[in-house]
Amino acid sequence: MRILGIDPGLLHTGWAVIDSNGSSRKYIASGVILPPAGLPFPQRLAIIFRGVSELCETFQPDQCSIEIIFVNVNPKTTLILGQARAAAIVAVANRDIPVFEYEPNKIKKALTSAGHATKDQIDKMVRILLPAANPKTPDEADAIAIALAHSNMARFV
Amino acid sequence: MRILGIDPGLLHTGWAVIDSNGSSRKYIASGVILPPAGLPFPQRLAIIFRGVSELCETFQPDQCSIEIIFVNVNPKTTLILGQARAAAIVAVANRDIPVFEYEPNKIKKALTSAGHATKDQIDKMVRILLPAANPKTPDEADAIAIALAHSNMARFV
Repeated sequence: MRILGIDPGLLHTGWAVIDSNGSSRKYIASGVILPPAGLPFPQRLAIIFRGVSELCETFQPDQCSIEIIFVNVNPKTTLILGQARAAAIVAVANRDIPVFEYEPNKIKKALTSAGHATKDQIDKMVRILLPAANPKTPDEADAIAIALAHSNMARFV
Repeated sequence: MRILGIDPGLLHTGWAVIDSNGSSRKYIASGVILPPAGLPFPQRLAIIFRGVSELCETFQPDQCSIEIIFVNVNPKTTLILGQARAAAIVAVANRDIPVFEYEPNKIKKALTSAGHATKDQIDKMVRILLPAANPKTPDEADAIAIALAHSNMARFV
């Protein structure tokens, strides 16, 4: 079972591909999609869409996992994030790849057994669970965490 | 110059195609994309994306116009709307069709010279400006208004 984890964002969309088989997990690849900040908003969304579409073509994931986002102290920022998230989701769902949505604290809990783990704790846990992974940014580490969390919660055999 | 106007929404995404040539406007087509409410959220976004993609294929618009959305009294609803909006934008921007974003009151002002026109006033103005149009829902009327507003503000020759 191949899982694509996505940590969406207009500036940085982290992504990770892992293989899950029973209790074993294998790191395949990860990275970040970076839409140039100077482009108009619609084009930046299109870059996220194309980036995720290419990932689906290259890695042929069976399932995708992504965070549910909530309105936080800055609803304007959340609204931008939501649109970046939708650009990524559409690229996956348009290929009939099932998309699983998880609340952020459930993702953290699935990895660290703490719903409020710090970014640093997530990064460390990712490196312990997948020594082959070497995330260069928090977005990449988060995407790996999101993929790992789905593999744990869905308990594939 | 062919314009695709979009009034996005998770339940109803209104769309309209008009031709604009100097001061003349011609109604081509309009309708509503209705993602079934029972489907998972990612699939509903994919239906909006596919619907708008098909419109681009069928009508070959040169430009697209869509409303800018703001966080209102219900940020949660706005967040869902934002994601539906992104699914529509991505379908257009991915084809390198320029997307023009307008504030809702600018769209109303371009049609009725009042920034706070009611839905009924918008509907009436749409029918006066484009007698061939016969919008069956407010979403369809709004999409026609968004296309008309762009044709007025961009002043194509």
